[in-house]
Amino acid sequence: MDFPGRSVSRRSMLAGAAVGVVAPAALASSAAAQPPQKGAVRKITMYAEALPGGLYGYGLAPGQASVPGPVLEIWEGDTLEITLVNNTDKRLSIHPHGVDYSTESDGSPLNDSFNDPGETRTYTWRTRPNFKAHGNLWMPGSAGYWHYHDHAMGTDHGTVGLQKGLYGALIVRRRGDLLPDRQFTCVFNDMTINNKVAPDTPMFEANHGERVEFIAIGHGNQPHTFHLHAHRWADNRTGMLEGPNDPSQVIDNKDLNPGGSFGFQVIAGEGVGPGAWMYHCHVQFHSDGGMAGVFLVRNRDGSMPPGAQEAIDRFRHHQHHPHSAHN
Amino acid sequence: MDFPGRSVSRRSMLAGAAVGVVAPAALASSAAAQPPQKGAVRKITMYAEALPGGLYGYGLAPGQASVPGPVLEIWEGDTLEITLVNNTDKRLSIHPHGVDYSTESDGSPLNDSFNDPGETRTYTWRTRPNFKAHGNLWMPGSAGYWHYHDHAMGTDHGTVGLQKGLYGALIVRRRGDLLPDRQFTCVFNDMTINNKVAPDTPMFEANHGERVEFIAIGHGNQPHTFHLHAHRWADNRTGMLEGPNDPSQVIDNKDLNPGGSFGFQVIAGEGVGPGAWMYHCHVQFHSDGGMAGVFLVRNRDGSMPPGAQEAIDRFRHHQHHPHSAHN
Amino acid sequence: MDFPGRSVSRRSMLAGAAVGVVAPAALASSAAAQPPQKGAVRKITMYAEALPGGLYGYGLAPGQASVPGPVLEIWEGDTLEITLVNNTDKRLSIHPHGVDYSTESDGSPLNDSFNDPGETRTYTWRTRPNFKAHGNLWMPGSAGYWHYHDHAMGTDHGTVGLQKGLYGALIVRRRGDLLPDRQFTCVFNDMTINNKVAPDTPMFEANHGERVEFIAIGHGNQPHTFHLHAHRWADNRTGMLEGPNDPSQVIDNKDLNPGGSFGFQVIAGEGVGPGAWMYHCHVQFHSDGGMAGVFLVRNRDGSMPPGAQEAIDRFRHHQHHPHSAHN
Ligand SMILES: [Cu+2]
Ligand SMILES: [Cu+2]
Ligand SMILES: [Cu+2]
Repeated sequence: MDFPGRSVSRRSMLAGAAVGVVAPAALASSAAAQPPQKGAVRKITMYAEALPGGLYGYGLAPGQASVPGPVLEIWEGDTLEITLVNNTDKRLSIHPHGVDYSTESDGSPLNDSFNDPGETRTYTWRTRPNFKAHGNLWMPGSAGYWHYHDHAMGTDHGTVGLQKGLYGALIVRRRGDLLPDRQFTCVFNDMTINNKVAPDTPMFEANHGERVEFIAIGHGNQPHTFHLHAHRWADNRTGMLEGPNDPSQVIDNKDLNPGGSFGFQVIAGEGVGPGAWMYHCHVQFHSDGGMAGVFLVRNRDGSMPPGAQEAIDRFRHHQHHPHSAHN
Repeated sequence: MDFPGRSVSRRSMLAGAAVGVVAPAALASSAAAQPPQKGAVRKITMYAEALPGGLYGYGLAPGQASVPGPVLEIWEGDTLEITLVNNTDKRLSIHPHGVDYSTESDGSPLNDSFNDPGETRTYTWRTRPNFKAHGNLWMPGSAGYWHYHDHAMGTDHGTVGLQKGLYGALIVRRRGDLLPDRQFTCVFNDMTINNKVAPDTPMFEANHGERVEFIAIGHGNQPHTFHLHAHRWADNRTGMLEGPNDPSQVIDNKDLNPGGSFGFQVIAGEGVGPGAWMYHCHVQFHSDGGMAGVFLVRNRDGSMPPGAQEAIDRFRHHQHHPHSAHN
Repeated sequence: MDFPGRSVSRRSMLAGAAVGVVAPAALASSAAAQPPQKGAVRKITMYAEALPGGLYGYGLAPGQASVPGPVLEIWEGDTLEITLVNNTDKRLSIHPHGVDYSTESDGSPLNDSFNDPGETRTYTWRTRPNFKAHGNLWMPGSAGYWHYHDHAMGTDHGTVGLQKGLYGALIVRRRGDLLPDRQFTCVFNDMTINNKVAPDTPMFEANHGERVEFIAIGHGNQPHTFHLHAHRWADNRTGMLEGPNDPSQVIDNKDLNPGGSFGFQVIAGEGVGPGAWMYHCHVQFHSDGGMAGVFLVRNRDGSMPPGAQEAIDRFRHHQHHPHSAHN
């Protein structure tokens, strides 16, 4: 099996007291997640680096920066301490969504919270569960499909850092959440997906029947809508219904605008079979302009299903001429 | 009674084992829907045709193509086999949202799934209910207010087909859902509603007290917001609350962006009385530019309420000068 | 204590049978709201006035017009009668979202419902609770974070009135809802926040631990996303979870588009501490262009936390050069 599109090496599933990068394949499929201990403090070092093509990325080790950066995962209740090493010659920072942090860890120039060129600085992110406020009202906990990004390069809002690739997914899991077999970060950043346009957009690959997690993030200046062919999800916290009477709308197309994020899990090819399934922005000029890619669902044994290679070849060829009419 | 705006003839309520076009008036008001049999296979033929003004449409019989196309309704669990006859000289297809289909029925050039000019091709859409995944987590079923559209005319994403009218509503009902007395498809497609601008936008008509279903769909390249005067709905699967403690936000204005759809039911004029109620995009330059129409709620006996005709006359006159200032 | 940003004087908490402006500080924190009587009719007079800089505003007394207008609050079940005095030389109206009104109170030129220059006119808004429709389906009641706005100045959709400041928040409370200590109206209106750009955007102020309510409203022609640093809320009716199993997504960034509104409550600085926290549109060019402000969380005793004044000074200085690069 060859999974060129797999992002295993960029995932940091913080499943143990010590931080480790755990391949998703090591996780029991459809097993409910159980944190090994409550309220652990997990420490990692991240490196911000310049990349070819004028890009910048975050990585978990020197020389491993990528766009998007690694998926960071913690349990609700955990604390994540990130020592960010700025190996670039630009001012930058790391700013999270969804979690708790004090002003020193805000990642914003407003709060004098950023790394000067060459500087190392620690950012602390805390999380906590829901708790009862009054009656049946509960204050929301930290669990969610969040994201992190630069908030300091170019402008006080990190506009240049975002344009150049300084972003990634942050997942805060709740006890009982299901862990996926594979996961994919899909960032609609201006007119790109993960700073790529078709046919160079990521090919997300899974085997038929695997539990796949998408983390969708929006950045930049354009409104977008994320559409995945032949799969659907619930418009709620997990993308799965919480019981048969969960009233959430079920969708396969969702607005994905700057600063927003959502995640969901699907069983690859469930009810539809393997094949080359498109994912794309549904704004027509955006998809025509290259905001499209392939979610390749292989056979259960990892082999290619009939027609998939032809579809991929077609994708690689045709997407170079997005506005040409055929007939 | 005269209901020029009623879309009865374009509704395909697939209530029986045999496909039939059932007028909504034949349905018992406020009756919970019960499918006649489980998992039926329903077969229809649709015709794609050129229309005046450079438009294209889908229809359930030759010469009956319309913009939007017919409302297609099935029960969750049913399979819908659509034999699409392409009576145009352009490449086109039919691509659904929300339901299950294999790559041959994807409707995308990527999967070589489209009709050449003059070609007939069958597309199969399957549906299924929620099912339990683990613990209290359920994988979402197919029930929803979905839509279908071309994915092949002009570009690999059907951009020209969409511009020209190849779209329609698709409803997958769940056992227990309420059936409406009337239903209206409202597509915000670029700067138009159903490819019309005011004062030629559709006038949706119902009698005071009737259960009315709106299916709102977004297409094209612009962000929009759908607003209906004097009526509101829940931002969930059905637009109604599932019990008094359903936490969903209640809204009367919802983002309606390309590729998205939602539906809801209201009781026409409930709590507000009959009259000429506006529906419009709430993006100001869009409503001023003609993305507005009238939801005419007649009296219970179908007669015109006081002031309604004057309002309609005003709408027809003033909408020709959208940017003129009045004071 | 000095709270220059507090909007107390612009809040109209209609808690009694007689209308009064109640300072939020007078409300018991975290106390569940109980309406004093059911179905009361509350009557207020509002004045539309010209303001400096070409703006217009609504106010609860002559000479008190503001942008945004006063927060109007009623209990679900109440009726609000608004006598609107038009003290300007322009045609204008008041149109609400979410509540019930007949065509005469629509506030639209379509229904001949507006105030000519100098004219006084009464608009009646009614509200009602959820009620059972069939089975487990309930028709939604009026409770929500809504808004009101002009629908007649400049165009039939009030485009000029909205540009110039004729908008405000409308809250319909449900029995059992929690009342806040402070509340802030935040309107993303074209490229402004409350018709201001940084550094003149409102500074929202609260003490650490106070229950703060944000009412976010979108207007104009641009898509926006509202982001608040270091605080989060549930994407449902109240912004709080209705029990530990409420499946709503928890968010800190939400689309805020024309005609839309939402509200939520947070405990100021909860889990993160006091400080100068940014709120801003997350569309990068919008935040860089001045759609940003400060949510100042003071210490519990109202004193300034360390670093907050420096952050505010930085905000006032840097926001004048939004596109300059720093490194
Ligand atoms: Cu897009
Ligand atoms: Cu619009
Ligand atoms: Cu914005």
